[in-house]
Amino acid sequence: IEEKNDEELLLHLEDVHHADIAEILTEINLEEATYLVKLLDSEKTAEALMELEEGVRERILENLSPKEIASELIEMDTDDAADIISELSFELQQDVISEITDEQHADDIVELLRYDEDSAGGLMAKELVKVNENWSVTGCMAEMRKQAENVTRVHSIYVVDDKNKLKGRLSLKDLLTASSDANISDIYIPNVDYVNVHTEGEEVARIMQKYDLEAIPVVDEMSRLVGRVTIDDIVDFIKDEAEKDYQMAAGISEDVEADASIWRLTRARLPWLILGLFGGLGAVYVMKSFDEALSEYVELFFFTPLIAAMAGNVGVQSSAIIVQGLANDNLKGSLFNRLLKEIGLTLINGVALGTLVIIFGWIVGQPQIVSLTIALSLITVIIIAALIGTFVPIILDKQGIDPAIATGPFITTSNDIFGIFIFFYLAQTILGF
Amino acid sequence: IEEKNDEELLLHLEDVHHADIAEILTEINLEEATYLVKLLDSEKTAEALMELEEGVRERILENLSPKEIASELIEMDTDDAADIISELSFELQQDVISEITDEQHADDIVELLRYDEDSAGGLMAKELVKVNENWSVTGCMAEMRKQAENVTRVHSIYVVDDKNKLKGRLSLKDLLTASSDANISDIYIPNVDYVNVHTEGEEVARIMQKYDLEAIPVVDEMSRLVGRVTIDDIVDFIKDEAEKDYQMAAGISEDVEADASIWRLTRARLPWLILGLFGGLGAVYVMKSFDEALSEYVELFFFTPLIAAMAGNVGVQSSAIIVQGLANDNLKGSLFNRLLKEIGLTLINGVALGTLVIIFGWIVGQPQIVSLTIALSLITVIIIAALIGTFVPIILDKQGIDPAIATGPFITTSNDIFGIFIFFYLAQTILGF
Repeated sequence: IEEKNDEELLLHLEDVHHADIAEILTEINLEEATYLVKLLDSEKTAEALMELEEGVRERILENLSPKEIASELIEMDTDDAADIISELSFELQQDVISEITDEQHADDIVELLRYDEDSAGGLMAKELVKVNENWSVTGCMAEMRKQAENVTRVHSIYVVDDKNKLKGRLSLKDLLTASSDANISDIYIPNVDYVNVHTEGEEVARIMQKYDLEAIPVVDEMSRLVGRVTIDDIVDFIKDEAEKDYQMAAGISEDVEADASIWRLTRARLPWLILGLFGGLGAVYVMKSFDEALSEYVELFFFTPLIAAMAGNVGVQSSAIIVQGLANDNLKGSLFNRLLKEIGLTLINGVALGTLVIIFGWIVGQPQIVSLTIALSLITVIIIAALIGTFVPIILDKQGIDPAIATGPFITTSNDIFGIFIFFYLAQTILGF
Repeated sequence: IEEKNDEELLLHLEDVHHADIAEILTEINLEEATYLVKLLDSEKTAEALMELEEGVRERILENLSPKEIASELIEMDTDDAADIISELSFELQQDVISEITDEQHADDIVELLRYDEDSAGGLMAKELVKVNENWSVTGCMAEMRKQAENVTRVHSIYVVDDKNKLKGRLSLKDLLTASSDANISDIYIPNVDYVNVHTEGEEVARIMQKYDLEAIPVVDEMSRLVGRVTIDDIVDFIKDEAEKDYQMAAGISEDVEADASIWRLTRARLPWLILGLFGGLGAVYVMKSFDEALSEYVELFFFTPLIAAMAGNVGVQSSAIIVQGLANDNLKGSLFNRLLKEIGLTLINGVALGTLVIIFGWIVGQPQIVSLTIALSLITVIIIAALIGTFVPIILDKQGIDPAIATGPFITTSNDIFGIFIFFYLAQTILGF
């Protein structure tokens, strides 16, 4: 297809959805992709560029002139355009913005660039439909039609006063069912959920999910309506956050995809591995300091990987439940109750596991006192591991640190060392070597 | 507040959002909650009940008569009502359905109960606005107003033919901007994304996210329009799926919350712990069979937790990246390339980690040949761990099994045993004990 047969290509791609064009752009090589972006109508490519992965998009944009980039941005909603501009180098940003012919659009983009990416201000778009409370229903229909031309999806119509302060909203349904001689101030709903430009993305997502909203208006410090966040951006945001948490739990410190370069993957994976290595070296030290046990109770050393693994597994389970509870804001009850519950829970699990260890020891003909020691240590170790897994995230959260960091390798590594130390210490106390 | 002062309570709660009422219901005790549900208007409590966690809702519903439950269900959208009915016992289901006075509503609910919970049929609602392609714009406005009364959010208007087959859609925006003397068949968009009742929930979510849809029509086997899935249900679905994956990776086999009962938590956590225990006991066996090394190279035994931990960590990292790649459907390139890349990546990490082990050995005055053996084994072990972590999920996925099951304890445990075996085997070959 890539014989530069422009007309046939255009014909072919005319009816293709922009998300599918994005897929095509990812699969062909860079030269072909650039050629295609230049060839196609920027209305279509603008949307397709938005759907691309950051890396692919960057490389395509590098091959376009500021003017060509600007013509793509004009077709985009302000929030998408701002996201893409923020990926460019500072100088290129200036050049591109100065090439945007629509003054208002450029202004809006510059405003959005000021907000933090993960705040309501960074997530919002400037495009929305708003009406003045003093207008009549018929009077505002014409105005609304004009505004709706620039807005991909209307959702709600926001009602403002003369100072642009948010007063309420009009649902399209109300408008459909309202008699045409009514006044806006008679029919609008004064109760409207909104967020501030500085509200964190997670809070915006929580509010929109809780109240099943599809768009939420964003106001500035003076309660003036400045934009709105739509549900499709929130869906992307929720998915990104979930992926980040999942990767963090797996010991991957940067947001990477399976197709990232080896160098990026290494940078994301090596730090936690080095932490794990130091944990392992710590365990070597702990065992060395108990090497008197070697002569009489060498079985203990065979059981250390088991103890370490169980401490790690229990810790990860506990921390995962707490981290999710914190994220969903549904942890109730006092810390003390949580402590009792976690101990009770782990005790049940511990007794079950300890019994299995004793049965195993009996089958292989291990001295009973050794089996008992191992079972008892196992129970102690996993109770402590569960407590670490439960309370480290809670403490981090209280300190304002993302508790998700405490899952995965961090908990596993610290529980490995603690577990092995407690194991040998208890064994020494009971068996007396 | 709970002095049964009905009127004051009603006044207080009149303007409270149903999501907030749900929070109140969760925090007060069961008796008070039941009292409140009976007291308040079922229009409000129906929505609030939907927002409750399953356990809390079940307990409240147990205290209501079938008739009272039915009056709540009448106020709900069909999809929500069907979800709640499916939580009831079979007999209670019959009683409740027979109490629903609105025949059409009961019919719709019964239809929805037939579909699998995680399919498009299970996610969809029957409420939607549809128009016949043969109507005129003005002619259908009245009809639409009537339909819109029953639909919480209009989103799109679907266009069907006389046989109820889906032909296309009308956006509200188009309708706002269309001249009133046009015909539906002139202005509707024939290109419409849709799914089948049997399409899996994940696929529905993927399509809606890819094309930024806020509602998608659902058709049956004969292309007849039977319902639609809205984005708020998809947001909940995406979040649930992400939480399930996260818990699976942490070794929690059932969907539990931090506030679940100890018994449910044990049922969710113990199975993977027992798996881990068997893994650990396997490692005991492996080490026992290499116990000739004890006399000369006892350091090796001190290093087994380190080897096991690193094998586990690397395996979890690799599998997490692959599982996410599979879930997002963005794994490209051949298996062979992926193999080469994974080996290259782990080799870089391995050499870095091996160097640290050698430096450590040099500091503590360990025989150089032992340090070298450990470093070399470590590199080999993590390469194999990475390959297991990469290919087990891919193979599971090809077999139609959810690859997320292969993260967490499963990979950790198998890598522990493999890692320890390879470590001792290589050490035996090099050091010759």
